[in-house]
Amino acid sequence: MPATTRLHVCITCRNSGAEPGNNQTDERDGKILHDALIAEHKVAKGSTDGETDVEIVPVECLSNCKSGCSLSLSAPGKWGYVYGNLTPETHRDDILKLANAYAQSSDGIVPWRERPESVRRNVIARIPPMNG
Amino acid sequence: MPATTRLHVCITCRNSGAEPGNNQTDERDGKILHDALIAEHKVAKGSTDGETDVEIVPVECLSNCKSGCSLSLSAPGKWGYVYGNLTPETHRDDILKLANAYAQSSDGIVPWRERPESVRRNVIARIPPMNG
Repeated sequence: MPATTRLHVCITCRNSGAEPGNNQTDERDGKILHDALIAEHKVAKGSTDGETDVEIVPVECLSNCKSGCSLSLSAPGKWGYVYGNLTPETHRDDILKLANAYAQSSDGIVPWRERPESVRRNVIARIPPMNG
Repeated sequence: MPATTRLHVCITCRNSGAEPGNNQTDERDGKILHDALIAEHKVAKGSTDGETDVEIVPVECLSNCKSGCSLSLSAPGKWGYVYGNLTPETHRDDILKLANAYAQSSDGIVPWRERPESVRRNVIARIPPMNG
Protein backbone atom coordinates (compact mmCIF):
# COMPACT_ATOMS: atom_id res chain seq x y z
CA MET A 1 0.00 0.00 0.00
CA PRO A 2 1.52 3.36 -0.97
CA ALA A 3 2.00 6.02 1.70
CA THR A 4 -0.89 8.46 1.70
CA THR A 5 -0.07 10.23 4.97
CA ARG A 6 2.72 12.77 4.85
CA LEU A 7 4.65 13.66 7.99
CA HIS A 8 6.49 16.83 6.96
CA VAL A 9 9.28 17.75 9.37
CA CYS A 10 10.79 21.22 9.23
CA ILE A 11 14.57 20.81 9.00
CA THR A 12 15.37 24.49 9.48
CA CYS A 13 13.70 24.84 12.89
CA ARG A 14 15.56 25.67 16.07
CA ASN A 15 14.45 24.56 19.53
CA SER A 16 12.37 27.01 21.53
CA GLY A 17 14.76 29.29 23.39
CA ALA A 18 17.69 28.65 21.08
CA GLU A 19 19.56 31.84 20.27
CA PRO A 20 20.11 32.36 16.56
CA GLY A 21 23.55 33.73 15.85
CA ASN A 22 25.41 31.57 18.30
CA ASN A 23 25.10 28.36 16.38
CA GLN A 24 24.50 29.27 12.76
CA THR A 25 26.78 26.50 11.58
CA ASP A 26 25.45 23.83 13.92
CA GLU A 27 23.05 21.23 12.63
CA ARG A 28 19.52 22.53 13.01
CA ASP A 29 17.37 20.99 15.73
CA GLY A 30 14.69 20.28 13.15
CA LYS A 31 17.13 18.27 11.03
CA ILE A 32 18.10 16.26 14.11
CA LEU A 33 14.42 15.58 14.83
CA HIS A 34 13.82 14.61 11.20
CA ASP A 35 16.73 12.17 11.18
CA ALA A 36 15.66 10.66 14.50
CA LEU A 37 12.16 10.08 13.16
CA ILE A 38 13.48 8.52 9.96
CA ALA A 39 15.73 6.17 11.95
CA GLU A 40 12.99 5.12 14.34
CA HIS A 41 10.49 4.76 11.51
CA LYS A 42 12.81 2.33 9.74
CA VAL A 43 13.09 0.25 12.89
CA ALA A 44 9.31 0.21 13.24
CA LYS A 45 8.87 -0.75 9.61
CA GLY A 46 11.41 -3.54 9.97
CA SER A 47 9.37 -5.08 12.75
CA THR A 48 6.27 -5.39 10.58
CA ASP A 49 5.80 -6.40 6.98
CA GLY A 50 7.83 -3.51 5.63
CA GLU A 51 4.79 -1.56 4.51
CA THR A 52 3.77 1.77 5.96
CA ASP A 53 1.11 4.35 5.37
CA VAL A 54 3.26 7.21 6.66
CA GLU A 55 5.97 8.93 4.64
CA ILE A 56 8.40 11.24 6.45
CA VAL A 57 9.35 14.20 4.27
CA PRO A 58 11.77 17.05 5.07
CA VAL A 59 10.51 20.58 4.48
CA GLU A 60 12.06 24.01 4.87
CA CYS A 61 9.86 26.17 7.09
CA LEU A 62 6.27 25.71 8.22
CA SER A 63 6.03 29.42 9.13
CA ASN A 64 5.89 28.48 12.78
CA CYS A 65 9.37 29.63 13.74
CA LYS A 66 8.43 30.94 17.19
CA SER A 67 7.31 27.52 18.38
CA GLY A 68 10.43 25.38 18.28
CA CYS A 69 10.65 22.28 16.11
CA SER A 70 7.57 21.77 13.99
CA LEU A 71 5.94 19.20 11.76
CA SER A 72 2.71 18.72 9.87
CA LEU A 73 0.46 15.76 9.22
CA SER A 74 -1.61 15.70 6.05
CA ALA A 75 -3.34 13.30 3.71
CA PRO A 76 -5.80 13.70 0.83
CA GLY A 77 -9.30 14.45 2.12
CA LYS A 78 -8.21 14.77 5.76
CA TRP A 79 -7.74 17.68 8.16
CA GLY A 80 -4.11 18.82 8.14
CA TYR A 81 -2.38 19.48 11.47
CA VAL A 82 0.70 21.46 12.51
CA TYR A 83 2.48 20.55 15.74
CA GLY A 84 5.22 22.58 17.44
CA ASN A 85 7.62 22.76 20.39
CA LEU A 86 8.91 19.25 19.72
CA THR A 87 12.23 17.61 20.60
CA PRO A 88 13.66 14.23 19.59
CA GLU A 89 14.32 13.25 23.20
CA THR A 90 10.80 13.84 24.45
CA HIS A 91 8.57 13.31 21.45
CA ARG A 92 10.14 11.00 18.86
CA ASP A 93 8.25 7.82 19.66
CA ASP A 94 4.97 9.57 20.34
CA ILE A 95 5.17 11.52 17.08
CA LEU A 96 5.28 8.23 15.19
CA LYS A 97 2.39 6.84 17.25
CA LEU A 98 0.42 9.98 16.50
CA ALA A 99 1.24 9.73 12.78
CA ASN A 100 0.04 6.13 12.70
CA ALA A 101 -3.19 7.04 14.49
CA TYR A 102 -3.65 9.89 12.00
CA ALA A 103 -3.07 7.52 9.07
CA GLN A 104 -5.67 5.13 10.42
CA SER A 105 -8.29 7.84 10.97
CA SER A 106 -10.90 8.52 8.33
CA ASP A 107 -10.76 12.31 8.53
CA GLY A 108 -7.43 13.12 10.20
CA ILE A 109 -9.08 13.83 13.55
CA VAL A 110 -7.49 11.63 16.21
CA PRO A 111 -9.62 11.78 19.37
CA TRP A 112 -7.91 13.68 22.18
CA ARG A 113 -7.62 10.64 24.44
CA GLU A 114 -6.04 8.61 21.65
CA ARG A 115 -3.30 11.17 21.01
CA PRO A 116 -0.08 10.31 22.88
CA GLU A 117 0.02 12.45 25.99
CA SER A 118 3.38 14.07 25.31
CA VAL A 119 2.21 15.62 22.03
CA ARG A 120 -1.51 16.22 22.46
CA ARG A 121 -0.99 19.76 23.76
CA ASN A 122 1.42 20.65 20.96
CA VAL A 123 -1.11 21.41 18.24
CA ILE A 124 -0.40 24.79 16.67
CA ALA A 125 -3.27 24.83 14.16
CA ARG A 126 -5.23 22.69 11.73
CA ILE A 127 -6.64 23.16 8.22
CA PRO A 128 -9.90 21.64 6.94
CA PRO A 129 -9.76 18.98 4.23
CA MET A 130 -9.72 20.23 0.66
CA ASN A 131 -12.97 18.48 -0.12
CA GLY A 132 -14.55 19.09 3.28
CA MET B 1 -15.19 29.24 -12.98
CA PRO B 2 -15.91 27.29 -9.78
CA ALA B 3 -14.23 28.38 -6.56
CA THR B 4 -11.08 26.37 -5.93
CA THR B 5 -9.70 28.47 -3.08
CA ARG B 6 -11.33 27.98 0.31
CA LEU B 7 -11.18 30.72 2.92
CA HIS B 8 -12.25 28.91 6.08
CA VAL B 9 -13.17 31.29 8.89
CA CYS B 10 -13.46 29.96 12.43
CA ILE B 11 -16.83 31.09 13.80
CA THR B 12 -16.18 29.93 17.37
CA CYS B 13 -13.07 32.11 17.93
CA ARG B 14 -12.90 34.89 20.47
CA ASN B 15 -10.68 37.93 20.10
CA SER B 16 -7.27 37.80 21.78
CA GLY B 17 -7.67 38.94 25.35
CA ALA B 18 -11.39 38.20 25.50
CA GLU B 19 -12.35 36.53 28.73
CA PRO B 20 -14.40 33.38 28.28
CA GLY B 21 -17.21 33.15 30.77
CA ASN B 22 -18.24 36.75 30.64
CA ASN B 23 -19.83 36.60 27.24
CA GLN B 24 -20.76 32.99 26.60
CA THR B 25 -24.04 34.01 25.04
CA ASP B 26 -22.66 36.85 22.95
CA GLU B 27 -22.05 36.34 19.27
CA ARG B 28 -18.56 35.02 18.80
CA ASP B 29 -15.95 37.37 17.35
CA GLY B 30 -15.14 34.79 14.70
CA LYS B 31 -18.76 34.72 13.54
CA ILE B 32 -18.72 38.51 13.28
CA LEU B 33 -15.53 38.34 11.23
CA HIS B 34 -17.03 35.63 9.00
CA ASP B 35 -20.19 37.65 8.35
CA ALA B 36 -18.18 40.80 7.62
CA LEU B 37 -16.08 38.93 5.08
CA ILE B 38 -19.14 37.42 3.42
CA ALA B 39 -20.78 40.85 3.14
CA GLU B 40 -17.68 42.52 1.73
CA HIS B 41 -17.03 39.61 -0.62
CA LYS B 42 -20.53 39.99 -2.10
CA VAL B 43 -19.89 43.67 -2.72
CA ALA B 44 -16.60 42.83 -4.41
CA LYS B 45 -18.20 40.15 -6.53
CA GLY B 46 -20.99 42.53 -7.54
CA SER B 47 -18.46 44.97 -8.88
CA THR B 48 -16.94 42.44 -11.29
CA ASP B 49 -18.54 39.82 -13.48
CA GLY B 50 -20.01 37.94 -10.55
CA GLU B 51 -17.43 35.17 -10.71
CA THR B 52 -14.94 34.46 -7.98
CA ASP B 53 -12.26 31.96 -7.27
CA VAL B 54 -12.57 32.30 -3.47
CA GLU B 55 -15.26 30.61 -1.41
CA ILE B 56 -15.74 31.72 2.20
CA VAL B 57 -16.67 28.79 4.42
CA PRO B 58 -17.47 28.80 8.16
CA VAL B 59 -15.65 26.25 10.30
CA GLU B 60 -15.73 25.39 13.98
CA CYS B 61 -12.21 25.55 15.41
CA LEU B 62 -8.86 25.62 13.69
CA SER B 63 -7.13 24.53 16.93
CA ASN B 64 -5.57 27.95 17.21
CA CYS B 65 -7.67 29.23 20.09
CA LYS B 66 -4.88 31.18 21.81
CA SER B 67 -4.41 33.47 18.83
CA GLY B 68 -7.67 35.36 18.50
CA CYS B 69 -9.80 35.10 15.38
CA SER B 70 -8.39 32.68 12.85
CA LEU B 71 -8.84 31.58 9.26
CA SER B 72 -7.19 29.29 6.76
CA LEU B 73 -6.50 29.51 3.05
CA SER B 74 -6.30 26.31 1.05
CA ALA B 75 -6.68 25.00 -2.46
CA PRO B 76 -5.85 21.70 -4.19
CA GLY B 77 -2.11 21.37 -4.83
CA LYS B 78 -1.21 24.54 -2.92
CA TRP B 79 0.39 25.28 0.45
CA GLY B 80 -2.30 25.79 3.11
CA TYR B 81 -1.99 28.75 5.49
CA VAL B 82 -3.47 29.56 8.90
CA TYR B 83 -3.69 33.21 9.99
CA GLY B 84 -4.57 34.44 13.48
CA ASN B 85 -5.13 37.50 15.67
CA LEU B 86 -7.56 39.01 13.17
CA THR B 87 -10.41 41.50 13.65
CA PRO B 88 -13.06 42.71 11.21
CA GLU B 89 -12.21 46.35 11.84
CA THR B 90 -8.52 46.07 11.06
CA HIS B 91 -8.24 43.19 8.63
CA ARG B 92 -11.45 42.61 6.65
CA ASP B 93 -10.44 44.24 3.38
CA ASP B 94 -6.87 42.98 3.50
CA ILE B 95 -7.99 39.41 4.20
CA LEU B 96 -9.94 39.47 0.95
CA LYS B 97 -6.98 40.97 -0.92
CA LEU B 98 -4.77 38.26 0.52
CA ALA B 99 -7.27 35.56 -0.46
CA ASN B 100 -7.38 36.85 -4.02
CA ALA B 101 -3.58 36.94 -4.23
CA TYR B 102 -3.54 33.39 -2.87
CA ALA B 103 -6.10 32.28 -5.45
CA GLN B 104 -3.99 33.75 -8.24
CA SER B 105 -0.76 32.14 -7.05
CA SER B 106 0.38 28.86 -8.54
CA ASP B 107 1.48 27.23 -5.29
CA GLY B 108 -0.26 29.23 -2.55
CA ILE B 109 2.88 31.16 -1.68
CA VAL B 110 2.17 34.88 -1.93
CA PRO B 111 5.47 36.79 -1.83
CA TRP B 112 5.94 38.72 1.42
CA ARG B 113 5.85 42.14 -0.25
CA GLU B 114 2.63 41.27 -2.06
CA ARG B 115 0.81 40.34 1.14
CA PRO B 116 -1.25 43.23 2.53
CA GLU B 117 0.78 44.80 5.32
CA SER B 118 -1.86 44.47 8.02
CA VAL B 119 -1.98 40.68 7.73
CA ARG B 120 1.49 39.63 6.63
CA ARG B 121 2.72 39.16 10.19
CA ASN B 122 -0.33 37.15 11.20
CA VAL B 123 0.71 33.79 9.79
CA ILE B 124 0.39 31.08 12.43
CA ALA B 125 1.60 28.14 10.33
CA ARG B 126 1.47 26.57 6.88
CA ILE B 127 1.13 23.03 5.53
CA PRO B 128 2.77 21.73 2.34
CA PRO B 129 0.60 20.80 -0.65
CA MET B 130 -0.75 17.27 -0.70
CA ASN B 131 1.08 16.48 -3.90
CA GLY B 132 4.18 18.54 -3.09
